[in-house]
Amino acid sequence: MEFNEINERDAAELGAIVAPQRISCGESSCALHSKDQSSHRAYVPGAVIWPLSAEEVAKIVSYACDRLMPVTAWGMGSSLEGNPIPVCGGIVLDFSMMNRVLAIRHEDFQADLEPGVIYQDLNETLRHQGLFFPPDPGARATIGGMIGNNASGSRTVRYGATRDHIMRLKVVLADGEIIEIGNRASKSSSGYDLVHIFVGSEGTLGIVVEATVKLTPIPAEFSAAVASFPSAEEAASAVFGIRRAGLDPVALEFLSPECMELVSREQGISIASGPAVFAEFAGPSASYLAETVVYAEEICRENGSLKYEAGIGRDRRDKLFRARHSLGEMIIRSHPDRKIMTTDVAVPISMFPSMIAFADAESRKTSLPRYLFSHAGDGNIHLVVLGRKDRESEIRTVEELNSRIVMKAIELGGTATGEHGVGIGKRIFMEREHGKSLEWMRRIKGLFDPKGILNPGKIFP
Amino acid sequence: MEFNEINERDAAELGAIVAPQRISCGESSCALHSKDQSSHRAYVPGAVIWPLSAEEVAKIVSYACDRLMPVTAWGMGSSLEGNPIPVCGGIVLDFSMMNRVLAIRHEDFQADLEPGVIYQDLNETLRHQGLFFPPDPGARATIGGMIGNNASGSRTVRYGATRDHIMRLKVVLADGEIIEIGNRASKSSSGYDLVHIFVGSEGTLGIVVEATVKLTPIPAEFSAAVASFPSAEEAASAVFGIRRAGLDPVALEFLSPECMELVSREQGISIASGPAVFAEFAGPSASYLAETVVYAEEICRENGSLKYEAGIGRDRRDKLFRARHSLGEMIIRSHPDRKIMTTDVAVPISMFPSMIAFADAESRKTSLPRYLFSHAGDGNIHLVVLGRKDRESEIRTVEELNSRIVMKAIELGGTATGEHGVGIGKRIFMEREHGKSLEWMRRIKGLFDPKGILNPGKIFP
Repeated sequence: MEFNEINERDAAELGAIVAPQRISCGESSCALHSKDQSSHRAYVPGAVIWPLSAEEVAKIVSYACDRLMPVTAWGMGSSLEGNPIPVCGGIVLDFSMMNRVLAIRHEDFQADLEPGVIYQDLNETLRHQGLFFPPDPGARATIGGMIGNNASGSRTVRYGATRDHIMRLKVVLADGEIIEIGNRASKSSSGYDLVHIFVGSEGTLGIVVEATVKLTPIPAEFSAAVASFPSAEEAASAVFGIRRAGLDPVALEFLSPECMELVSREQGISIASGPAVFAEFAGPSASYLAETVVYAEEICRENGSLKYEAGIGRDRRDKLFRARHSLGEMIIRSHPDRKIMTTDVAVPISMFPSMIAFADAESRKTSLPRYLFSHAGDGNIHLVVLGRKDRESEIRTVEELNSRIVMKAIELGGTATGEHGVGIGKRIFMEREHGKSLEWMRRIKGLFDPKGILNPGKIFP
Repeated sequence: MEFNEINERDAAELGAIVAPQRISCGESSCALHSKDQSSHRAYVPGAVIWPLSAEEVAKIVSYACDRLMPVTAWGMGSSLEGNPIPVCGGIVLDFSMMNRVLAIRHEDFQADLEPGVIYQDLNETLRHQGLFFPPDPGARATIGGMIGNNASGSRTVRYGATRDHIMRLKVVLADGEIIEIGNRASKSSSGYDLVHIFVGSEGTLGIVVEATVKLTPIPAEFSAAVASFPSAEEAASAVFGIRRAGLDPVALEFLSPECMELVSREQGISIASGPAVFAEFAGPSASYLAETVVYAEEICRENGSLKYEAGIGRDRRDKLFRARHSLGEMIIRSHPDRKIMTTDVAVPISMFPSMIAFADAESRKTSLPRYLFSHAGDGNIHLVVLGRKDRESEIRTVEELNSRIVMKAIELGGTATGEHGVGIGKRIFMEREHGKSLEWMRRIKGLFDPKGILNPGKIFP
């Protein structure tokens, strides 16, 4: 696909659509929107625009469609697979100024949001009403980015992914048409489910300019526990045991010894040496939780746990969660000379112990620094193995390892990406994962975006 | 669209694909597949075929595509909106012989099913493993029909609709291609969500030949309660109060006095006169449930309940559920000379009291026999008003009433159909509900089924 570059006249016309101060072709703005938190290389856009309304977005996209220019939506740039990197240049739409909470209808457990709302800020607002928006990717992500990516995180094991919380969307399509899809009823069998085509489409089919999301009551009581194990595989078996028993944790995380050391060193949280499982339970009463935690302990002991620390209070739990959420950043900081590549496979939970064992053994063979961590309750595994940026052979080793792990996950009935999206890095696995249905994804792309201007260079190999 | 009729040669060739005894062009077979449980008129297909495998389905559809013949999938014919009526004739694929449970992976909370599996039979099998497939439309529906319709029912308030329980599908497309979509991991951000395009598409985009469904542990304890109220609106306010309080019932049903009388007369279950709310709660322990039931009682009293009967045991609960599930059939039996038209709107729960009040008042004006009942916790309302089949003016009155109720629901942010699907009867409301996005549904139909052979005459006006 040949795109046009943004010239001075384009910049002036686009500036007239928004306001001159809400478009920038300057070096620093463009550099700031040239890469996300992944290690994928930067591509500098031609212009960054900060829209204020659906109508502005529609006009910009319509202009870009006429002039054959790429348009890439941008939330916080916190994604991990190059999803919003403008690899073909063009316009980046930064949604940070479209960040209004339009309505909270607490009685319906719903909120109407602009895409630039940051989910932690939303949850801070909702806290006083006893509600929250459950998907939690950890990073300071925007709702728009989360929808684009079908983001999920440590609470997904109980509450589902972003996909499960989107009721209605307003979307700007590739020619600038605005459509509304879905509705506010808690269920519907009316026509085709367009909402879920857009959720997880990484801005390649349309640009979300408003969303109605489903909220959830905050449970009355929480209780957390940490258990350590002699091996990763035993820890993984305990995770499987907890899920199989139907204990319904709100978080069930796995951390390798290297992660535990890093957390201990950087955050001064010392819990367990060996591979560890962090479990959190929530429920209507303390007595119910006490039972659950005891049951979880039994399962951990049966799987060889060395230490089980239960009854972790809210402060320590919050600290642990923050540490878990900043693990990626800590790894980056600790290894400035190394390239970060994160696997993000997910497998059916029964396959989790063998998947963890495989990832553990294979990564060990490389002798490179490595961190294995996992939203274990979902069977979602992240492995970071670090090759030096200037050692081509190490980078190749890591890439080959990543590839073997993805292939294994697909073979076990799983997926190449549990939550980071396809972006740039997972495109090479799409054929393998989806087979003939990839062609149907391409056709849907062709239907909604025949000129291919929306976030080009993503998802498809 | 001009379709070809099935001639003798077609019948012979189709018979060679399956086996001569698994195709019938006979009058009785065709009549049995000419109408569902709705009042929509019958259309007789050219042939009924009972496939045994995905490959047979693919060959039949491929043949039909070449010869330009409609193909309509058939589960049990229990739908209520004409969804599987072969309005353009052609081939009906009856899935009753493709009814194998291919695998139950209890450790993953998943089952692989052929489309002809009946969900009650599945749940009977699963009971011994402490698991169940939650969506419960009530009728003896097949999994294939439930997927086609995105079926839901009285447990949806807690567990979601069929849509929320489908992980993976094998689908035969309009030219006979077989694709597999989705995977068995509990989450994925890999490419476009094709699974949810097919769920609820009423067999107009492809024919489901295998599904991996998500299962749920059966809660340890249940407790049910029935409350009666002076008016429908007060009952509806109590429903809203229970939802708003976050009590998370597993069922929350509303029944008008006419329904209560019918249940009492036909099933000998006497509970309450007046408008009633039936609530069921489930949880990990009896003590937790006791608290919940007391809280629910307070909410009912605040909303003027006249009588509150709590602690209903399993036998009586099962009896009540069976009565609720057979309400539709009881109404049909009690009024053989009248036409059954069922509204199926759903609105956001905060709008439920005004929607119920509107439906109650408007239907009362007609002076025709009427039954108002509702999966109230979902804001999903069924109203049956019965005009005599031979009185055109009464039928028109009912149609106009139905139309006013649907328009009102859409105006309140809701939907024309909560669970019965669009089928034939709700097509006229699609423009109003979906606006411009209806055109995108048409385009998706055009993409997947360019010749329009799959269940023609449905969904689109």
